[in-house]
Amino acid sequence: MKQLHKRKVIRFSKGQIEEKIDSIAVERPITIRINGKEFMTIVCTPEYVEDMVVGFLVSEGVIPRFESVQEIWMQEETGIVHIRTEQHFPFYEKMLNKRYITSCCGMSRQAFVFAHDALTAKEMTSVNVQITPEQCFSLMEEMELAADMFRHTGGVHNAALCDPNGIILSRMDIGRHNALDKIFGHCLRNNIPVEGKVIAFSGRISSEILLKVAKIGCEIVLSKSAPTELALELAEELGITTVGFIRGESFNLYTHPERIIFV
Amino acid sequence: MKQLHKRKVIRFSKGQIEEKIDSIAVERPITIRINGKEFMTIVCTPEYVEDMVVGFLVSEGVIPRFESVQEIWMQEETGIVHIRTEQHFPFYEKMLNKRYITSCCGMSRQAFVFAHDALTAKEMTSVNVQITPEQCFSLMEEMELAADMFRHTGGVHNAALCDPNGIILSRMDIGRHNALDKIFGHCLRNNIPVEGKVIAFSGRISSEILLKVAKIGCEIVLSKSAPTELALELAEELGITTVGFIRGESFNLYTHPERIIFV
Repeated sequence: MKQLHKRKVIRFSKGQIEEKIDSIAVERPITIRINGKEFMTIVCTPEYVEDMVVGFLVSEGVIPRFESVQEIWMQEETGIVHIRTEQHFPFYEKMLNKRYITSCCGMSRQAFVFAHDALTAKEMTSVNVQITPEQCFSLMEEMELAADMFRHTGGVHNAALCDPNGIILSRMDIGRHNALDKIFGHCLRNNIPVEGKVIAFSGRISSEILLKVAKIGCEIVLSKSAPTELALELAEELGITTVGFIRGESFNLYTHPERIIFV
Repeated sequence: MKQLHKRKVIRFSKGQIEEKIDSIAVERPITIRINGKEFMTIVCTPEYVEDMVVGFLVSEGVIPRFESVQEIWMQEETGIVHIRTEQHFPFYEKMLNKRYITSCCGMSRQAFVFAHDALTAKEMTSVNVQITPEQCFSLMEEMELAADMFRHTGGVHNAALCDPNGIILSRMDIGRHNALDKIFGHCLRNNIPVEGKVIAFSGRISSEILLKVAKIGCEIVLSKSAPTELALELAEELGITTVGFIRGESFNLYTHPERIIFV
């Protein structure tokens, strides 16, 4: 599926008008059908689409695990991805955009906003990976170099799955969480473990991105941008190390510092 | 509601570690209840929240017009916005994220992706506003100057409602369409007409943003970033003038050039 479309535009520059051909990013609707029934439509950058669908469905708990997927195929012309599965969670749609209300008296998981997130975000209770400041800088740099396409136009999100020594996989998308879903889906379909891995992300660490990292099951998230307060509350609760503002030779370490080795 | 939270962070810079207090952007869940029933939760920057809710519900067609809202009030502690209305569209939730399938043989509105968008996006059939290239540059510049808060951290979307001579209203939010919903809600609640107005937006013109502009009812959208191909197809069909890459003394004019006066 092509990701750039050629289009005639009117270019105005320093008082001069000319017609030119410009490359425009394609944004494509992908419709997921589960066992023949329309489930949801996602607008995305049309590459690694099946990975994205698998990553989305498993990370959000619509399908309990990748092994439940018996068949997946895409109709290229219509953008419909068909999933055949024996097991899926039929209440997802009813829970989407619905608030999570704690009914018990404990304080646990009080930071959750959405009902479906409380079911699927994993808590990272142990330290399976540690990185140095130098590795923070080099992973971020490597992620930015890998994300060359569309970079000049801005607005595209890039994500990379890393181990301490380098990038394993890099993906981009117009949609915020799609790049992460593409990474997770690729790992599931190719049996690449995500435990002990690091996510480097190009944009702000919002609560949505932090939750997606927890759903995938990574312990550290790196960004050159800032986190939000809600993302940090979730990170504290879920045991995720958050490093932001990675620029030049500096960064801010916000939560769970035990995974950053300063000596 | 405060928009920044003070938090202790570990700052690493050129080999030195120090603790410092940092300002973190607040991201808050807002739950909409319509006639006592939970409708949806939106995560947003907590300012102009009631405007955002009104703008969202009317632009998306959940409530047919602002006059249908009999009462709106917010519970500050819980973040619940209560709406009392005699008229609302009960099928919105069922249509959300569902694909729009054209059942007739005409080609009209084939670019729509989502069923609810096809109901609410307005077609701009006449030219009620025209601007010069100089006005494109000055409106964009004025929008960026107005959007000072959070600018250094990136990742926040800014939008401004303008007439050819300047900015009328400027709003920001962590969520993509929230800034536009805040503008529209303010206009509805204060009886400010949106006809013949221009939207200046800080980020990429995705299909979601283009559709929101059409739902509000503005004829021109300006951005310093790029549009997507799907957004341009929708803009052509809906009669909206799209100007992107507004930087320095240059821009690209993509659709409906009749509203830009070059002489």
